[in-house]
Amino acid sequence: MKMAISPTRREDFPEWYQEVIKAADLAEHAPVRGCMIIKPNGYAIWENIQSTLDKKFKEIGVQNAYFPLFIPLSYIEKEASHIEGFAKECAIVTHTRLEKGVDGKLTPTNQLEEPLIVRPTSEMIIGDSFAKWIKSYRDLPMKVNQWCNVVRWEMRPRLFLRTSEFLWQEGHTAHATSDDGEMQARGMLDLYANFARDILAIPVITGDKSEGERFPGAVNTLTFEGMMQDGKALQMGTSHFMGTNFAKASGIQFLNESGNLEYVNTTSWGVTTRMIGAIIMVHSDDNGFVMPPRVASKHVAIVPFLVKEEHNSEVLSYCHKLAEELNKIIYYNKSVVAFVDTTNRRGGEKKWDAIKKGYPLRLEIGKRDIEQNRLPLFLRTKENDSILLSKDELIKEITNYLDQIHDTLYQKAFKFQQENIVSVNSLTEFADLFREGDVFPNHFVSAPFIGNKIVEGQIQKEYNVTIRCIPHDQPQLAQCIFTKNSGARHAIFAKAY
Amino acid sequence: MKMAISPTRREDFPEWYQEVIKAADLAEHAPVRGCMIIKPNGYAIWENIQSTLDKKFKEIGVQNAYFPLFIPLSYIEKEASHIEGFAKECAIVTHTRLEKGVDGKLTPTNQLEEPLIVRPTSEMIIGDSFAKWIKSYRDLPMKVNQWCNVVRWEMRPRLFLRTSEFLWQEGHTAHATSDDGEMQARGMLDLYANFARDILAIPVITGDKSEGERFPGAVNTLTFEGMMQDGKALQMGTSHFMGTNFAKASGIQFLNESGNLEYVNTTSWGVTTRMIGAIIMVHSDDNGFVMPPRVASKHVAIVPFLVKEEHNSEVLSYCHKLAEELNKIIYYNKSVVAFVDTTNRRGGEKKWDAIKKGYPLRLEIGKRDIEQNRLPLFLRTKENDSILLSKDELIKEITNYLDQIHDTLYQKAFKFQQENIVSVNSLTEFADLFREGDVFPNHFVSAPFIGNKIVEGQIQKEYNVTIRCIPHDQPQLAQCIFTKNSGARHAIFAKAY
Repeated sequence: MKMAISPTRREDFPEWYQEVIKAADLAEHAPVRGCMIIKPNGYAIWENIQSTLDKKFKEIGVQNAYFPLFIPLSYIEKEASHIEGFAKECAIVTHTRLEKGVDGKLTPTNQLEEPLIVRPTSEMIIGDSFAKWIKSYRDLPMKVNQWCNVVRWEMRPRLFLRTSEFLWQEGHTAHATSDDGEMQARGMLDLYANFARDILAIPVITGDKSEGERFPGAVNTLTFEGMMQDGKALQMGTSHFMGTNFAKASGIQFLNESGNLEYVNTTSWGVTTRMIGAIIMVHSDDNGFVMPPRVASKHVAIVPFLVKEEHNSEVLSYCHKLAEELNKIIYYNKSVVAFVDTTNRRGGEKKWDAIKKGYPLRLEIGKRDIEQNRLPLFLRTKENDSILLSKDELIKEITNYLDQIHDTLYQKAFKFQQENIVSVNSLTEFADLFREGDVFPNHFVSAPFIGNKIVEGQIQKEYNVTIRCIPHDQPQLAQCIFTKNSGARHAIFAKAY
Repeated sequence: MKMAISPTRREDFPEWYQEVIKAADLAEHAPVRGCMIIKPNGYAIWENIQSTLDKKFKEIGVQNAYFPLFIPLSYIEKEASHIEGFAKECAIVTHTRLEKGVDGKLTPTNQLEEPLIVRPTSEMIIGDSFAKWIKSYRDLPMKVNQWCNVVRWEMRPRLFLRTSEFLWQEGHTAHATSDDGEMQARGMLDLYANFARDILAIPVITGDKSEGERFPGAVNTLTFEGMMQDGKALQMGTSHFMGTNFAKASGIQFLNESGNLEYVNTTSWGVTTRMIGAIIMVHSDDNGFVMPPRVASKHVAIVPFLVKEEHNSEVLSYCHKLAEELNKIIYYNKSVVAFVDTTNRRGGEKKWDAIKKGYPLRLEIGKRDIEQNRLPLFLRTKENDSILLSKDELIKEITNYLDQIHDTLYQKAFKFQQENIVSVNSLTEFADLFREGDVFPNHFVSAPFIGNKIVEGQIQKEYNVTIRCIPHDQPQLAQCIFTKNSGARHAIFAKAY
């Protein structure tokens, strides 16, 4: 079978990734270094991620709002470890007017008294609002979310994975007690992990971040990590429990039931356009992109086979009517999107285009298929066989086929993940696995660890891996293979994006 | 009847506007001068505007995408009149890192070689993409839209009306011919005007902008203008036909059917969070905000009247069940949102809160109402009478009551608009109307005008009014009351936001 993407995953995974994005018309680099343009075929996936998550957020009482793009420098400075975490990657607005200079060139003028930071996150500005909005225990919990753009200046940009500007949602909540806050942070992690599994068909590993990987200023960072097909880890999103750290920095207090002032406990949690990068690297193959059906921009590509001029209008009109009928079907709260490829290309080219773009289903329809009422349906996950269906069967069964593709994708990714997690109990085994250099695929290594930031730094330096997460529910503690201290939980080590 | 907002509209319209926003909890000023925080009750209206318009855009083949926040200075300079229009209000990013200076203070470092402009609009950056994406007539028309934030530095900010950062959608299209482009720009104007009428219950006046009010670089700017209750005009959105001006600046060419290179014709069109300002100023009254039902954040406030302790749980549980049933009803593609006010306040306070927040319907439910199955329903537009309905009637009729409120709001606004447009045919009449100074309400004055930017400037200087629009379809031309030239169309003059 012809391979559409060159190089293949095994030949050069990073290059393959770029080529899939290009072939599927998902995004491209913007004129401003580090920024990206998300093209319609990619943006539709983000819209589907948004609408599905947004509904889930609202079901648990989260309300959307909008906070400003610009943050005064003094706000960012309020929490010391927070500003340290972002200082190296801030875009800073210093002027608000352009005027022609003596050389005739436009030059920034009207310098601001206080520089403004383009938000890298809105913790501090939302904290300031919470301090005004929250007065008593009756105002708690407060749960606010915003969908917006954020900026973290990036020297080595990669489409969807690391860009200077990206899109995300950031949820921020305030609670009366530490328990409520921790429960919220944990609940969001579960919501995200279920979303990854049920909607994106991606199995994830969940747990705590280690000290070295924690969000600046957080008490605990919960994470969910996906295994890409090169065996590297991608952090797909995080949920932070801040304790009262940010409440103290922003002065968020409430009168409790006894009439005493207390600091609230806060959480924040977010996912970004990076999720699209995960989808690409988990599901796609050497023929191109593979869209998980529940966030697909389009579900069904209809390729009309136009062989004889005199039949063309009949075939086309049949295809258009079929698309119309399919578009009435609802799948995961949205209309199925079927479209007829009417471009001026040969059938074979259209077929390959649909494969590379990763549409879950493809129908190839010619005059004879219509006459016989046997329509050849191709599943993106099973390219070699077509299924012959009557039009009625197709309409009746289409959501089942979409579910089937979802299940196939999930099972395949889950199997791959399980096969590539290795558990070790000695430093020798650990070192052997990571000293080999880059293999394909790389491994996730589960090893007992207990130690601080410094130990983590040493491990990263020596083996070029980081702790991705420390899974919850570990009844058996062991001896750390690095520090030899007892009481260690198994941590997942991996190379990461 | 008690008036909830002080001052009233007549006493001090601008101050009344601020107080309505505060009482309805819609938005507030951000710590960064000129920026705003859109609170959940206001943001939900924006989400409803978005989802309704987005659906209409997609129906006519517009695809969403995302373009970067930052624009290189050199891109903005490409079109001379364009940069002139925005130079005085640009936020400019000059540095990308914060470091501690010798004084121990965080200081911007890592200066960019080329300053970046925070997008005031994305014309030039989308033009650059169109130049890459469009190759032949087969790629046309191209229709792209984005929902995003934009920044135009504002010295005299007013919530929703003029803020340094605001949210909007900007649609950009490219066409093979000038006719197609003009038709698209006109079609979008109609779509917006219908949306204002059918969804926001706002009657608008549509037409061309005069030369002095045209978008920098456009051949023609179409506008739709609303009349606020103080008789001032608010530009609610615009649709621009650029001809080939922007195509030439950005190099957007296509191979036509004969194989020759031609420049495309482009359009752009947008509406902003300003629409929420229009809603407030057209519909609200001296009791507070009045939400048009088809974009309401919440449709029904249920106020439980809890008189006797022993009945409270029964009343509350009835109200919650009722809310649940109402929430299953679909109104304009969205679920009806009914909620029970369970705050710790007296019934009267809850009632006034619902009125000030502008929810279209309110139910006041006590023990006896439940027993008699006669639920008192209050319409926000008819505060003095309640309608008694059984639960079944309520559920059956609720969308009719929402429609009735929509119609009442539209008719009232339309009558007000008609009463306050004055047609004049002499400069004396014109001068008399505007020399009176500020009256309440002000007038829209329709007068024959033909002239250039300079004449417009003189009129503005002398009378403090601008040409809001020149309506289409004017069979009868007249003599301009200012220049005395013949062939003048009637233009609408008004004071404006």
